[in-house]
This record gives sequence, C-alpha cells and structure tokens, in this order.
Amino acid sequence: MSYFRPAIDAMTGYIPGEQPKPGTKIIKLNTNENPYPPSPKAMEVLHNLDGEWLRRYPDPFAREFCQAVSDALGVPADWIIVGNGSDDVLNVLVRSCAEGSERKVLYPMPTYVLYRTLSAIQPAQVVEVPYPADFQLPIKELIAANGAITFIASPNSPSGHVVPLDDLRELAQQVSGIVVVDEAYTDFAEYSALRLVQEFENVIVLRTLSKGYSLAGLRMGFGVANPKLLAGLFKVKDSYNIDAIAIAVGTAAMRDQAYKNACADKVKISRTKLAQDLKNLGWKVLDSQANFVLATPTEGNAESIYLGLKERGILVRYFKQPGLEDKLRITVGTDEQNQMLVEALVSVNK
Amino acid sequence: MSYFRPAIDAMTGYIPGEQPKPGTKIIKLNTNENPYPPSPKAMEVLHNLDGEWLRRYPDPFAREFCQAVSDALGVPADWIIVGNGSDDVLNVLVRSCAEGSERKVLYPMPTYVLYRTLSAIQPAQVVEVPYPADFQLPIKELIAANGAITFIASPNSPSGHVVPLDDLRELAQQVSGIVVVDEAYTDFAEYSALRLVQEFENVIVLRTLSKGYSLAGLRMGFGVANPKLLAGLFKVKDSYNIDAIAIAVGTAAMRDQAYKNACADKVKISRTKLAQDLKNLGWKVLDSQANFVLATPTEGNAESIYLGLKERGILVRYFKQPGLEDKLRITVGTDEQNQMLVEALVSVNK
Repeated sequence: MSYFRPAIDAMTGYIPGEQPKPGTKIIKLNTNENPYPPSPKAMEVLHNLDGEWLRRYPDPFAREFCQAVSDALGVPADWIIVGNGSDDVLNVLVRSCAEGSERKVLYPMPTYVLYRTLSAIQPAQVVEVPYPADFQLPIKELIAANGAITFIASPNSPSGHVVPLDDLRELAQQVSGIVVVDEAYTDFAEYSALRLVQEFENVIVLRTLSKGYSLAGLRMGFGVANPKLLAGLFKVKDSYNIDAIAIAVGTAAMRDQAYKNACADKVKISRTKLAQDLKNLGWKVLDSQANFVLATPTEGNAESIYLGLKERGILVRYFKQPGLEDKLRITVGTDEQNQMLVEALVSVNK
Repeated sequence: MSYFRPAIDAMTGYIPGEQPKPGTKIIKLNTNENPYPPSPKAMEVLHNLDGEWLRRYPDPFAREFCQAVSDALGVPADWIIVGNGSDDVLNVLVRSCAEGSERKVLYPMPTYVLYRTLSAIQPAQVVEVPYPADFQLPIKELIAANGAITFIASPNSPSGHVVPLDDLRELAQQVSGIVVVDEAYTDFAEYSALRLVQEFENVIVLRTLSKGYSLAGLRMGFGVANPKLLAGLFKVKDSYNIDAIAIAVGTAAMRDQAYKNACADKVKISRTKLAQDLKNLGWKVLDSQANFVLATPTEGNAESIYLGLKERGILVRYFKQPGLEDKLRITVGTDEQNQMLVEALVSVNK
C-alpha cells in the first residue's frame, strides 16, 4: 500500500513561478510582485516589534487586522476571514465545500492554476469552462454546471480583464453553491465586486496584501463574506494560520491606503506605457486592469523569447498550456525595468 | 443543499487555548509558551529586515532555514519540510495520507486534540486507543488497528511523558502506514526520536519553534523524514506557506542553539521546583519532560480551581474530557510566576 491517498499519488504538485535567491541580479517580472517597497509605516512597525509579541501565540482571528480592513473598506469586521495569503483562504474554501463529483469546482479558463491543484488534492471534480476569445464570462455554461464552488478571478490572471458586476450578480443568483470572486489584483482595477457580499450570502470576495501592498513575502490575504458563510470556513481554518508579525505589519499597511494607492497609480501609468511599447514592437496586448499584461509576440515564438529574456537576466512568465503557448505574461515593473525589458526584446528578436 | 461538505456541517471547530490581548495583565500558563523571550540574535535579524525582503515572494522550500536545521541537528537539508507551525505539517500529513475508513488515523489518548479535528475535516476515521494509567504506549492495539497515520506526541501533551525509542521502533516496524513522532516539546526532554528517521522510511519527526525557541507568534515548525516520504507531502503543502520574515528570523533562532538550551535548562529547573511545590500542597503531579505539568488537586475540583485562578489573573488549561476532568495542565513559567500560582492556589482552596 502506498503511504499516500490515491488522489495524491495521481497528481503532480503546483509549480510556483521561479523565485531566484534574494540578491540575485535579475529583473523579476514573472510573479506579479509590486515594484515598489511596502509602506514605510508598515516597515516601522516591523522594526519596533518586541520579543513578547513573538513569544506568545497570535490572535486566531487577527482582530486588529480585521478592524483595519473594516475601516479601510467599509465592511463589518466580523465579515472577514484572514488567511496565510489568499491562497490559504482558497484552500479553506475547497476543503470546506468541494468533494468528489457531488460537489464540483468550477471556473472559466485560463485562470489561476492553483484552483485546479487544490481540487486535485481534495479531490473534487473540476469543470473548466473555456473563456471565449473576447473574455466574456461564459455564464450559461457555469450556471448549467452548478458547482459547489465557482472561482472567478477578477481581474483575471493571466488575461488581466475584469468581470462585469452584472455578470457576477447573475451567476450568484443562479447557482446554489458559493461564488468566489478572487480580487488579488483589484488594487490596479477600475472597480471591485466587494459590494456583492452585502447582496448575496453565497458570495465571498478575496483580497491579498501580496500585490497592491507590496507584501508578497508577508503571506497575508483575506476573504469578505456574510458571517453565515464564514462560520463553516472558520471550522477548517487553522487556528494560528496568521503569525503575530503579519498581524502587526499587515494592519499598518492596511491603514496606509494613501501609500498603497499612490504606488498603484504609478503601476497603472507604467502599464499603459509598457502596453504601448509592446504594441510598437508589433505585439498584441490585451487590455489589463491588473499589474501585468498578457502579450502575444508576432515575430518569434513565445517560449524562445521567454528563454532569451532569461539569458539576459529578465524573468517573465511563460505558460505551456493550450491557448497560452503563444503568449507571455509580463509583470509591470518600474518604468526603468520595463524599458530594459523592451530593449531586451528588440535584441532577443534579432 | 448546504454550502458545506457533510463532514464540515457535522463537526465543531478546534477551540484553541485562550489568548488574552497583548498588554493584558495576566499570568499566562495555559498554552505552553516559553516564559523567556526569543533569541536576541533572532530579534536583531527581525529589526534589520528591509522592504525588498517583504516585497518579493518567499522561497517555497525555506532552504536557508533548512540549512540551519541541518547544521543544528545533523540531518540532511533535503530531509526537511517546513510548515507554518508544526500544525501545518500535521495538516499536510492528514491530507496526504488519511481518508475515510480505508486510511485511518490512529493515536493513543489523551493527546493533542488537533489530531482529531484534522481527521474530522478530512474526513478520516479515527481510532483512539486509551493510554493505561502508567502511560505505557499501547503498542499492540496500535499495531492491530494499522492506521495510514499513527500520531505519537512525545513528550505527550497533556501528560508530559516521553515514549521510549524501542516502543516507537516496534511500532514503525509493524505498521504499513506513517508514524508521526510529534516532538513539539522535545527541547525540554531527555531524549529525542530524531535518529529513527534514518532507520525507518515511514517515520517523520516533527519539531516546532513555538516552545523551545520562544517563537509561538512566528508560526514555524518542520518535519524531518526520508525524502521519499517528503515527496508526497510536498504535493500538498502550500507553495508559500512560510513567510519571508519567518524564514529569516527562524534561521537566526535555529543557529542560536546555545540561547535556546540555556532557556530550556532554566525551564527544567523551574519545572522540578513547581512540581515539588504542588506536591507540597498535596497535589498529584505526573513526571514531565515538557514545559508543563499535569497535576491533580486532592482538595476542591479542578474546574473550580481553574476558574478561581482565572479570577485572580492566572490562566491554566482545563480540559473537560474523560480522564482529564480532575486535572489541570500548568505551563512552567518563570520562578516568580510559578510562585504566584502556588500562592494563588492556597487562597483559591480556602
């Protein structure tokens, strides 16, 4: 007998984007980190933490952080579940709700690959509904499949598009399961679905501090939903999933909305410029409301460009999967980094 | 249809020990935190972290930390899996190996309550084998039940006893599943089962930084096992379960073994004194190799003593479960805290 469950023996693990060692001289545009440092106020809190804060177990509900979210976003503090990254909340959702072919996981494709991995671990049957070329949400197909969980990333990765609220409303109305709106990239978008949690008991909106708040290293995300929905999730969440440092630093970052918004504004301006520069090279670039662009080179193939850039010390993301093999997902860096990327592309293509 | 899986609807969540707000004036002897602060070297690393370290995703394998463990404990760095607390590794183990009645979870009772909670979430059938009064490991019963996972906490909580290595050897030899030796409290014990991972492919030894290293707030633990065993677990572990701060601070703490050992020595001396003081009050106290004692008052009942202490600003742990209702688990504090506890007990009993 294997040590492991059949589902685990059958699966391959999730492969995260490459993380070169700190200090490596590289322009890292592959995992959608924010190019600007975290809030100085958050760093000040970090540098003033005392040993007593680390010696003791953290607050299992991270209430101090929930209050900061409540103040910043105007949602009640008890409508919040905090995760060790929003990946942790995704994990808790799958474990709470999905199971076999009775309680399926649904999502439009292409999207965040972790939804598939978490379902394989559970295991739960997955229904992947392809996005059409214009990235309109395939609502009818999603409603017909009626999942225990439907994951909608908005802005979506790797496409960068935002799903209209009326589409999400129709979906939430028509399915009996939970609709998860994964807003990891919302700090760079024009609008959010956050208000839907007040309208629908079965909607949870996820946020992260990894992108907009420049805190990918902190591992902090959260979900906002009706407390009736959260009650089931709290049974599955690990009591001490959030460390005491993350609570303190994350709270300070959340309270510094002005800094976060200023960085996001810079990223959005750079995004427009990067997209135009790529178009000037003849690339096709999808409109993006995230901190990356999905772009299709018209000369050369995407994989060899990815490799050529890597040789030149620039990492971007290449997905070897149907519909994406001819594209690259490029994180928006600083203007200087983006400029170096564009120059490298010219030399790679020669 | 419920939003949740039947197993989730059927269960109640794990209830962690009370965590009063920081700054609350209380003597906290209920969740086995170390009374001494973390290593000054670890705090220095914390206070010198820069924003770049937080901006980027952490190393999914926490290799820097694994190297420190390797150097400190003499195990190869690639024999280590790092968790967000050892609770995270327990979670990964249950998810990787246990399932329904085909792949059962086994453990002697009483022990750490989380084993039951994690099994209820999975769900996996649990077989709880009672410890006899002398806390000899019930090996025959455990072997007969043949679990996919057998959890042995050693030192065990709440009893504080250590399981002899030959008993663990016999168990590991006779079962086809994984034997998990949960050594959360080993820094206060006379010996460890760590060498067994070299002898048996199906043994994993778990450690934590929450107790010996005074870093309960950091959430960091790890497992040591043959890479063949780890390969399955890595499929289930979240890629970014360990934050960048924990990697840096945990590495420094692991490299400061001298400080950790000095604190553990103080705790062990205090443990002996506390046990004697309780015996002088007429209590029965089990020999403990952990940083707590399990003690039975001979006058008054345990629950009312627990409540009386709480009124006086002293928290200890009371478990309302068969075999434990007449006992209290008391974390070893500083000598001053222990003295205040003993004095309060005299007044509570009046």
